[in-house]
Amino acid sequence: MERTLIAETIKKVGQKVRLCGWVNTRRDHGKMVFVDLRDRSGLVQIVGGEKLGGLRLEDAIEVEGLIKERPINMINEKISTGRVEIEVESVKILAKSAELPFDMGTEFKVQLPTLLDFRPLVLRHPTQKAIFDTQEKIIQAFRSYLNEEGFTEIFCPTITATATEGGAELFKIDYFNHEAFLAQSPQFYKQIAVGAFERVFTIAHAYRAEPSITTRHLTEYVGLDVEMGFIDSWQDIYQTADKLLRFIFAELKKIKPKIDALRGKGKEMIIPKTATKTPVFKLREAQKEFLGKSNCQEPDLSPEDEKIICEKVKEKTGSDLVIITHYPTKKRPMYTFPDPKDSEYTYSFDILGMGVEWVTGSQRINDYQQLYESIKSRGYNPDNFSFYLQAFKYGMPPEGGFCLGLERITQHLLGLENVRQASLFPRDLSRIDVKLAEIKKNNVSSKKK
Amino acid sequence: MERTLIAETIKKVGQKVRLCGWVNTRRDHGKMVFVDLRDRSGLVQIVGGEKLGGLRLEDAIEVEGLIKERPINMINEKISTGRVEIEVESVKILAKSAELPFDMGTEFKVQLPTLLDFRPLVLRHPTQKAIFDTQEKIIQAFRSYLNEEGFTEIFCPTITATATEGGAELFKIDYFNHEAFLAQSPQFYKQIAVGAFERVFTIAHAYRAEPSITTRHLTEYVGLDVEMGFIDSWQDIYQTADKLLRFIFAELKKIKPKIDALRGKGKEMIIPKTATKTPVFKLREAQKEFLGKSNCQEPDLSPEDEKIICEKVKEKTGSDLVIITHYPTKKRPMYTFPDPKDSEYTYSFDILGMGVEWVTGSQRINDYQQLYESIKSRGYNPDNFSFYLQAFKYGMPPEGGFCLGLERITQHLLGLENVRQASLFPRDLSRIDVKLAEIKKNNVSSKKK
Repeated sequence: MERTLIAETIKKVGQKVRLCGWVNTRRDHGKMVFVDLRDRSGLVQIVGGEKLGGLRLEDAIEVEGLIKERPINMINEKISTGRVEIEVESVKILAKSAELPFDMGTEFKVQLPTLLDFRPLVLRHPTQKAIFDTQEKIIQAFRSYLNEEGFTEIFCPTITATATEGGAELFKIDYFNHEAFLAQSPQFYKQIAVGAFERVFTIAHAYRAEPSITTRHLTEYVGLDVEMGFIDSWQDIYQTADKLLRFIFAELKKIKPKIDALRGKGKEMIIPKTATKTPVFKLREAQKEFLGKSNCQEPDLSPEDEKIICEKVKEKTGSDLVIITHYPTKKRPMYTFPDPKDSEYTYSFDILGMGVEWVTGSQRINDYQQLYESIKSRGYNPDNFSFYLQAFKYGMPPEGGFCLGLERITQHLLGLENVRQASLFPRDLSRIDVKLAEIKKNNVSSKKK
Repeated sequence: MERTLIAETIKKVGQKVRLCGWVNTRRDHGKMVFVDLRDRSGLVQIVGGEKLGGLRLEDAIEVEGLIKERPINMINEKISTGRVEIEVESVKILAKSAELPFDMGTEFKVQLPTLLDFRPLVLRHPTQKAIFDTQEKIIQAFRSYLNEEGFTEIFCPTITATATEGGAELFKIDYFNHEAFLAQSPQFYKQIAVGAFERVFTIAHAYRAEPSITTRHLTEYVGLDVEMGFIDSWQDIYQTADKLLRFIFAELKKIKPKIDALRGKGKEMIIPKTATKTPVFKLREAQKEFLGKSNCQEPDLSPEDEKIICEKVKEKTGSDLVIITHYPTKKRPMYTFPDPKDSEYTYSFDILGMGVEWVTGSQRINDYQQLYESIKSRGYNPDNFSFYLQAFKYGMPPEGGFCLGLERITQHLLGLENVRQASLFPRDLSRIDVKLAEIKKNNVSSKKK
């Protein structure tokens, strides 16, 4: 018999079906046993006697049975299959589960170390799966908007020979006895690609040897990177980013009810409110207007500043998003286009959303000589950038771009406390799946037989 | 004035438009100058006098002018805009190009070292861009087929603590003074994810410290990885791979004419011919039937064997694809499911296409104890695999999967001599963009000021 997905059971009342899934919960009422079976499409109640008696939570099973409507007083409004149940005819255990180390029920509440130590198990919980369903939707919306706008998806390497944006926080690789690095971003490659494809995007792993443990940093993360040539003005860049975010929000609205249901009480997806036009402020204006400091010459916004600006902009305009432009030249990378009217500032921007940075971007220097000088002025050797510079030697049009961190966006939209919760298998200072200390111990005692 | 894309010009005859792009070719006929302008959508002819006189190949320019129909005897059938031309009114140079180091015209023919040394420039050529347009289509078809079949796209880390499939050919990373590795595949992660999502796919960078230079190897490549749980039989796995390939071929057929036109004479996309049912042979059967060796006990197929098998299967069945199953246990990784009828062989397969391997896959061992023993029997310490093993402790259904190499598939479909041509920025033993020897030289003389 063909397998039926659990979500399809409500359409097959009165039919005999074969279901596959995991034992999500089990309730014993005298001789009757009630099991909630879980598959990728949802949950459904299985009813039986001793046939279900030997089951343990998380056993992978196959069930044959009859789909029946529940009596009205037994309907469960909380799940989409709540008006049916399966009268079991046969059960086959596909794989037994060990006893669970903690409660995986609806009251699921575990601390971060458990969330990480038991990642393979924890990811099965609907509240966790909802995080990655959201993430997939973000990616799909990202691609779909950009493809529609004529962008080509490209694949950039992660092994690099030079530090993209300065030398700090790089992971070193032993590359056939040469020194190489893990890329901090696909920045150079997406810019080079503009010369061939005009408009590109890439979903790229990026690496930071961040030597501190925070709730906001991963050592390996997924960057959503965009770059576009033949811009008419530098505003094209942040306007594209703004439209892209709005498209992502619109797509997320479609799955919001499902995600909210999976994540449980009070854990709703937070889709930012947008105004007709997202407010734009120069950094200096925003500092003056919202931070009210006598000294508005701070070169950058602190996390606290970003929070205050967002709150005040929201009050004033109703917008959860705000675009801050013209960051100082010295705070931005060497490829950032200086404002022709005041070269201490740049054609750069951040999009802040609900108190934190969502997007960062800028116009880039596209003139070969100017880029060469900018590299030199920062104290780098242009010879190390010869490959990158080559792209600008042969007619690079005015261009710019921006990037978003996939895990951070997911974190913000779902109100997660820690960015690690938005990464399937997060890496940090102390952990590669298991704790580094643990790995060292094993390696000492494990030399291959 | 809004920019018009070149492909749109044929719909706007008689209108004044603004075009942006690069000077692709230039022909001077007395006082008249003819320029072919190139943008991401195609080529169009611009006609003018001294206004075009200062242009050099690859200058990035903006042109305003009138779209006119060409006289019938001047129509160029080779380009899609061949029945129009633009009478130039004004030209603005956005970025000047240096003189080109080699001919980028239609007779473009450069050797591999030039193709790599001048990658940023070379990628602009239509024949090169066509490679990556094909690649994007492969990826889009891959995702679209799998999403339709209920697969979730996931993102797997590339920094790992243990060697996935044995210890050879790994790049080492200095991870906060611990030893870590670049992943050889997302194998463990996609299997773990089956426990949560049932069906997953991932587009993942994978790394091989391959110490030799061949036409088939990259040190960093893009793997298209698929994994599926609750399979009814192990045949489900190769049948899914087979259907996926057929879907990709069908999608590629739609862009074939465009790609063939871009790549020029005799450089056609080669879409494999499929039979109603792709032929399936056990390794031993195929050796016996097609290789005609008295000794059919070779543990694996050589590249030459694969070529012969494909040729003979094609002759016999008309199919360019053939599925070879049941490779010996000792030639396959420790997670491969042994054939219950003969544990010297496995439920594993390769799909060969036109003489080479396209897909490799297998059913996996899903029983915790059996997997534990298999790891031990290969001489590894199961403690090093505790995270991976955890997924199998809590009810892992029967599952399996497969993978394809993106660059190799692209190479085969376009008949490229070298896999490097199918990677935007290829990495190998001697090169990370520029030659490693070159990098060393620069680093010595470049210490940050």
